[in-house]
Amino acid sequence: MLKSFFSFLLLSVLLISCVKKESKFTSAPKGASHPNLILTSKSVSEIKSKLGSIPLFDQTLAITKEEVDLEISKGISVPIPKDMAGGYTHTQHKLNYIIMQKAGVLFQLLGDEKYAIFIKEMLFEYAKIFPKLPLHPQTRSYSRGKLFWQCLNDSNWLVYTSQAYDCIYSWLSKEQSDYLNKTLFRPYADFLSIENPQYFNRVHNHSTWGNVAVGMIGLVMNDDELVHRALYGLDKVNVDLTAKDNDGGFIFDKNGKAGFFANLDSPFSPDGYYTEGPYYQRYAIYPFLIFAEALQNNKPELKIFEYKNGVLIKAVHALLNLTDDDGEFFPLNDGQKGMSYYTPSLVSAVNIAYYYGTQNPELLSIAKKQNQVQLDATGLAIAISLKENKEEKFIKKSIELSDGSLGDEGGISILRHQKLNETMTLVYKYTAQGLSHGHYDKLSFSMYENGDEVIQDYGFSRFVNIEQKNGGGYLNENKTFAKQTIAHNTIVQNETSHFNSDFETGSKNHSEKYLFDISNPNFQITSAKEKNAYPGTEIHRTMIMVKDTTLTNPFIIDIARVSSSKKNNYDLPFYYLGQLISTNFNYETPENLSILGKKNGYQHLWKEAFGNANSDNIQFTWLHKKRFYTLTSSTKTDDEIILARIGANDPNFNLRKDPMLLIRKRNIQNAVFATIIESHGNYDPVTEKAENLYNHFKSIKVLVNDENYTAIEIIDNNNKSKILILANNESSSYKNHSIKINNKNYTFKGSYNYN
Amino acid sequence: MLKSFFSFLLLSVLLISCVKKESKFTSAPKGASHPNLILTSKSVSEIKSKLGSIPLFDQTLAITKEEVDLEISKGISVPIPKDMAGGYTHTQHKLNYIIMQKAGVLFQLLGDEKYAIFIKEMLFEYAKIFPKLPLHPQTRSYSRGKLFWQCLNDSNWLVYTSQAYDCIYSWLSKEQSDYLNKTLFRPYADFLSIENPQYFNRVHNHSTWGNVAVGMIGLVMNDDELVHRALYGLDKVNVDLTAKDNDGGFIFDKNGKAGFFANLDSPFSPDGYYTEGPYYQRYAIYPFLIFAEALQNNKPELKIFEYKNGVLIKAVHALLNLTDDDGEFFPLNDGQKGMSYYTPSLVSAVNIAYYYGTQNPELLSIAKKQNQVQLDATGLAIAISLKENKEEKFIKKSIELSDGSLGDEGGISILRHQKLNETMTLVYKYTAQGLSHGHYDKLSFSMYENGDEVIQDYGFSRFVNIEQKNGGGYLNENKTFAKQTIAHNTIVQNETSHFNSDFETGSKNHSEKYLFDISNPNFQITSAKEKNAYPGTEIHRTMIMVKDTTLTNPFIIDIARVSSSKKNNYDLPFYYLGQLISTNFNYETPENLSILGKKNGYQHLWKEAFGNANSDNIQFTWLHKKRFYTLTSSTKTDDEIILARIGANDPNFNLRKDPMLLIRKRNIQNAVFATIIESHGNYDPVTEKAENLYNHFKSIKVLVNDENYTAIEIIDNNNKSKILILANNESSSYKNHSIKINNKNYTFKGSYNYN
Repeated sequence: MLKSFFSFLLLSVLLISCVKKESKFTSAPKGASHPNLILTSKSVSEIKSKLGSIPLFDQTLAITKEEVDLEISKGISVPIPKDMAGGYTHTQHKLNYIIMQKAGVLFQLLGDEKYAIFIKEMLFEYAKIFPKLPLHPQTRSYSRGKLFWQCLNDSNWLVYTSQAYDCIYSWLSKEQSDYLNKTLFRPYADFLSIENPQYFNRVHNHSTWGNVAVGMIGLVMNDDELVHRALYGLDKVNVDLTAKDNDGGFIFDKNGKAGFFANLDSPFSPDGYYTEGPYYQRYAIYPFLIFAEALQNNKPELKIFEYKNGVLIKAVHALLNLTDDDGEFFPLNDGQKGMSYYTPSLVSAVNIAYYYGTQNPELLSIAKKQNQVQLDATGLAIAISLKENKEEKFIKKSIELSDGSLGDEGGISILRHQKLNETMTLVYKYTAQGLSHGHYDKLSFSMYENGDEVIQDYGFSRFVNIEQKNGGGYLNENKTFAKQTIAHNTIVQNETSHFNSDFETGSKNHSEKYLFDISNPNFQITSAKEKNAYPGTEIHRTMIMVKDTTLTNPFIIDIARVSSSKKNNYDLPFYYLGQLISTNFNYETPENLSILGKKNGYQHLWKEAFGNANSDNIQFTWLHKKRFYTLTSSTKTDDEIILARIGANDPNFNLRKDPMLLIRKRNIQNAVFATIIESHGNYDPVTEKAENLYNHFKSIKVLVNDENYTAIEIIDNNNKSKILILANNESSSYKNHSIKINNKNYTFKGSYNYN
Repeated sequence: MLKSFFSFLLLSVLLISCVKKESKFTSAPKGASHPNLILTSKSVSEIKSKLGSIPLFDQTLAITKEEVDLEISKGISVPIPKDMAGGYTHTQHKLNYIIMQKAGVLFQLLGDEKYAIFIKEMLFEYAKIFPKLPLHPQTRSYSRGKLFWQCLNDSNWLVYTSQAYDCIYSWLSKEQSDYLNKTLFRPYADFLSIENPQYFNRVHNHSTWGNVAVGMIGLVMNDDELVHRALYGLDKVNVDLTAKDNDGGFIFDKNGKAGFFANLDSPFSPDGYYTEGPYYQRYAIYPFLIFAEALQNNKPELKIFEYKNGVLIKAVHALLNLTDDDGEFFPLNDGQKGMSYYTPSLVSAVNIAYYYGTQNPELLSIAKKQNQVQLDATGLAIAISLKENKEEKFIKKSIELSDGSLGDEGGISILRHQKLNETMTLVYKYTAQGLSHGHYDKLSFSMYENGDEVIQDYGFSRFVNIEQKNGGGYLNENKTFAKQTIAHNTIVQNETSHFNSDFETGSKNHSEKYLFDISNPNFQITSAKEKNAYPGTEIHRTMIMVKDTTLTNPFIIDIARVSSSKKNNYDLPFYYLGQLISTNFNYETPENLSILGKKNGYQHLWKEAFGNANSDNIQFTWLHKKRFYTLTSSTKTDDEIILARIGANDPNFNLRKDPMLLIRKRNIQNAVFATIIESHGNYDPVTEKAENLYNHFKSIKVLVNDENYTAIEIIDNNNKSKILILANNESSSYKNHSIKINNKNYTFKGSYNYN
C-alpha cells in the first residue's frame, strides 16, 4: 500500500514535470468570475429569479434533480478502467461525467452544497487515480484513452466535467483548484492533445471532441495556451499524412489544418451539412455548439456564431431537416437507425441555435416535442417562449444541402410531399466521401412514408454500447457489407464497389449536382452525375417526385443512366422493406441458397430467387406497414431479376436479414434504369380491408437515350401516357430544346419536360 | 334484351314454384311491429329522445351518417358476381350490405327517407339479378355462393341486409315487401340452407353465419319455418359424416346436431372459449350475439342469454382476455395477427354483453377505447354509462379457459404479470383440435411483453382480402407449414407432426390439464399432458411465471418432459423474434443454406447455423424491440442446436422470414427440456444506453426425472440456487410429498415446491 503510494507520487511528479517542460502553466484568477463557461454569474441570477414560473425549465430542473439525487445516494464510484463500451467501468465513467455536469448546474441554480461536495469528492477520486493510469488496457483504438478505450470518450468526459468544475470553481479553495488543475486537468488536457497528436490534430468528429475538451478546460482554468491549442491545433507535429485510423479514415487533413476552426472550416458545407453524415453531425453538434456558447461567453470578440456565415446555426437547421417524420435521422453513411432529435445533444443544439440565432419560432415546436431544455440561459429562453406560446410548426420542406467546405462537392436532396398527416420523403445522396464514416454509395437514395422506411438505407453495422457485439464498436460487416456499394440503392458496375472501395480515391472525388428544382411542388426534380466511381463510366441519375391530381399519393420516377467506354454488367438494387405480394415476372427459387457473389458485399447476400424479365417491364408489388407499393421498371427481356436477402457469411448474426430486389443488365455499354415507385394502397388487419391493391402504372419505356436527351414514356392502366424528356448536358432553366420523338416534335424551355 | 327478360321471368317462376313446393310461405303481418329485429319501436323512440345528449352515441351516428351519405352519393352498384375476395365484385357486394345495414339504422333514427329509398332501390337491384344468378363462377369452395365465392359471404350479406330490410319493412308497401320476400329473401334463405345442407348443417363458424342469416330474415319476414330451421338445422339430411370441406375440416358434427343451438352447444366451452380459436371466435361472435339480441327481442321465452349458463356473455369476456396489451387477439390456431378488439364485431359484442349481461363496468373501458358504439339500445346504454363516467379499467388477469363442450377437453392458460405499464404474458395451449382451423400444436406456448410478441405463434398463412395472394384465401403454406407442429413452440418427435397431421385423429383427442395454480401471484404455474399426439409417448409440460423480488421482470421456467416406450429424436423450437446478440455455444454457419427436413413443415426452414451444446447448458441472448432476452436451457453435450429461419420452399414468398432456435435431443427415450426465459434489459437507440445487457441466471439443471418427480435446480450468477420439484402424477394441492435429492430430504404439500 505504502509502496504503491510512493510509486503514485513518483509517477505524478514525473508526469507533472513532463508537462511543465512543454507549457506555461497558468491557473485561473481565483474566485474571479466563475461560473463563466456555459452558465455565467449573470445568467444564474436571471434563472434563479424566474425559478418556479417557467414550466418546461422547472420540469427539466426537477427531473434533473431527481436523477442526480438518486445517483448521489448511491455513492461515488471511480473504478480502475478496464472494459470496452457497454462494460461496467466504461458505463460508470460515462455516468460520472453526465451526473457531475448536472450536479454542477444544480449547485449553481439551487445553491445546495451537497452537489458541490459530490463533484469535488469525485474529482478528487479522479485526481487520485489519473496520474498513475496507464493507457487503457483495451488496445483497439488508434488513440487509446485512459479512462476509456479511446481518447474520444476521454474527451467526452472532459467536455462535461469542465462544466461541472466551472460550477464549483469559486466554491473550491485555491489549494483545491490548484491541486485539481495540476494533478488532473492540465495533464488530462495534455494527454488528449500533446500526447495524442494523431488524435488531436485531425479533421474529424473525434478531434472536435478533443479540441473542445481542451478548450473548455482551458477556459475554466483561464489557460490561454490550452484555448489556443483547442482553436488552432498543435503547432507543429511530425505526421504521416497518409496514416489512417482504425475506422479506415485519414488521420490528418490534407491541408494540414487542425483545431476547432479547422473542424468548422472543412467538414461543414456552407449549408451546414456535415460531411460525415447526420449521425455524426448529431454527435459532433454538441461539442461544436457548447464550445461556441462558452466562447461567446468568454471571447465574444471571436463572433463564433457568425463564423462562416453563421454555419453553426445553419448546421442545426440542416440536422433537423435530415430527419424523418418521427424526428429520426436519415442513416446516411455510418448511422444508427432510431437516433433522433430527441437525443440530448439536439436539445442543447436547438436551445443554443434559438438563443444565438434568430429566435426562429419553428425551433420552439421541436423543443416542445423534446419536452426538456438545457439548464442555462438558452434553455430558459426556449422555456419562456414556449410559455408564451410563441411556437410555430417546424415545416420540413424539400431542400438541398450542399456538401464540401465550399459547397461545391455535391450534396443531398430531400424531396418531400405532405398532405394532411401523410408525408412521402425521398433522400438522394450525391455527396463527397464523408471522411472515414462515408459509404461507397454515390447517387444512392432512400424513401420514406409517414416516418417509416419504404426503401431503406442500411445504415451502419454496429450495436453501439452493446458489449457482446464487439464491445459496442464497429463490426466487421460494416466494412464488408454496410459500406459497400451493393448495400445501397445505387448502380454497381461489374460487382465492384465505387472507387473499388478505395478510401483514398473516394476521398479525392465527389458527385456533381446537375439539377435541383422544386419550384413546382407537384413535380420536384433532382439530378446528379458521378464520373469517377468507375473510371470510364458516367452515371447520371435523376429522381422526381410527381404528384398527379388524379392519384392520392405522389410517385417517384427514377432515371439512372449509365454510359461507359466499354461493356459492363450493371446492377441496381432496391432494398424494399416488407413482404412480396406479386410480380409480373417468373422466377425460380433454388433448393439451396447460395451467395450472390464472393466479395464487395455480394458475399453477404443470399440469392433467394432469380429469373429473367422476359418483358419490357417488370412489376413488383409488396406490402409494408399496412401499405402497398409497386415498383415498375423498364427492362430488356434478358435482364436478370434477382431477389436477394442480407445475411450470408454472417457468423455472428450481425446483419439484419432484410430483402432486396436487384435488376441486372449484363454486357452492355450504355444502359438506362427507368423506374416508377408507387405507394398505392393500404391494408387494415382489423377491418381486413385492402384498398387499392393494384398500382396505377402499367409500364415505363425508354424512348430516347443519347448524349443529349433521355426521353421516357409512362403509361397508366387506362393507357394514358406521359412523356418525360430530360436534357442530359444542359441544366439551365433558360435554354430552349427541341427534339423529335417518334416523328413528333417536342420543344421546351429548361432542362426537362413532362407532358 | 326482351329475350333475357323472358328468361328472367321464366327462371323466377321456376325458382319460386320450386320454393313453394318445399315451404309454407308466410309473410309478415304488414306494418305490424317493425323494426323488431335489432332496433325495436321502443328502442328507437328512446334513442330519438336522447339524440344530441350522449356524446359517444352521437359521434358514432355522425360518422355513420357521413360514411353512408358518401356512399349514397356514389350511386348504387350491384355488379354480376365474378371475383374472389379482394376483387371488385366481392368488395362491392360487401360494401353494399354494410352500407345498407347502416342506412337502415339512419332511416330509423333520423327519419330521412333517402336512406329507405337507397335500401329499397338496392334491394330491388338484388331482386332483379338474384333469381337468375348461377353459382358463383369461382369454384374453390365446398359450398359456392351466388353473390360471393362461398355461401359464408352470402350469409354475411343476409345477416346485415336482414337488419336493413327490417328497418324499412313497414315503410315499404305490402306489394313491395311481398315481392322482395318471394323473389329475393326466401329463395336466398333456402339457397343457404336447403340447397346447401353441407354448409348449413355443420358445427362451424361458417354454419353459424348461415344459421343466423336464415334466422334473421325469418324473424323479419315472420317466417317461423325459417327461424326453426335456423335454430335446429335442417331436419333430415342424407350426409356423409366423414366428408370434409376445403379447409380440411369435417362437414358434420359427430353427434349429428345442427343449427344455431348446436353451434352454441358444441364449440363453446363452459368458460366461453370457442374451440376454433380467438380469430374465428371474433368472427363468429357477431352472428352469435346479434341473433341473440334479435331472439331476445322476438322470442324472449328462449332466454337465449341464459343458455348454457350464460355462455354468450362469457364468450365475450373470454375473447377480451385472449388479447395482448394492444387488444390484439393471440393468433392461436388459424389467426391473423393484428386483428383486435377494435374490430366492429367486438364493438357489437361488448355492447350486447354489457346490456344483456351484468353491466360490468370494466366493459365500458373497452368500449371507450373502441370509441364507437352499436347504434341500438345496447350502444345507447354503453354511451350513457360512459357519459356518467362509470367505466372501470378492464384488468386482464391470469386465467384458464377450458376447451370442449363440457370443459373437459384441455384448455388455454394465460399467465400475466403486470407492474405499472409493463406486462409479461405467457399463453399456453393444451386444447382440443379446434375443428378445421386447428393447428397441430399440443402444449405449445407464446410469450408477450408489453403488447409485443417475444416468442411468437406464427398464426395462419393467409392474406385476407388481398386478391393477389390466392384470392385472399388460405395459402398452401398454411397447411404445409403454419399448421404443422414444427411451426410452433412445442415438442416434435422424429420430425413428424402431432397425430401425424391427421385431422381425424387429432379431432378425437385433446390434451389434459394437469394443474393451474395462480394463487401465488409471484409463482404462477400451469401444467398439462399430451398422451395421444405420438402413440407410446407422453409429453408433460409445465410452465411457470416467477417474479423474484430481486429482479425487475418476471421470468419463465419451462419444463417439458417427454417419456416414451422407445428411443426417438425430440425437437423443441423457440420462435424468438429479434436479433441474436450472443450465445455461449459454438456453431457453424454453412456456405449454402439447405432445408432442415423434407416434410412436415421442416421443408420450409432454412438451416442457418448448427452446432452441439458441448455443455450442460446453452444460453442464447437476443434483442427485440429494444429489449434483451436470454434463454437458458439444460442440455447434454451432444444435444444439437440449430438456428433456423422460415422461408424455404416458398415460391410465392408467402411466409415471413422469421428466425427460430431449435434444441434437438437425439435417440433418447425420456428427455427433459428445462428452460429459463428471461427479459432482462433494454436498449435505447436515442440515448444509446444499454441497461442490463447480461442475464441473471447461469444455469438450469435437471436433478431428478422419474415417473413421480422432476426436480430442477436453477443457479444465478451469484451462485445462489433454487430447487423446483414437480410431482408428475399427483396434482392435488393437499397431498404431502417427500423426496431425497443429493442426500437431502425435501418434504412439501401440494404438487410442486420451489425453494
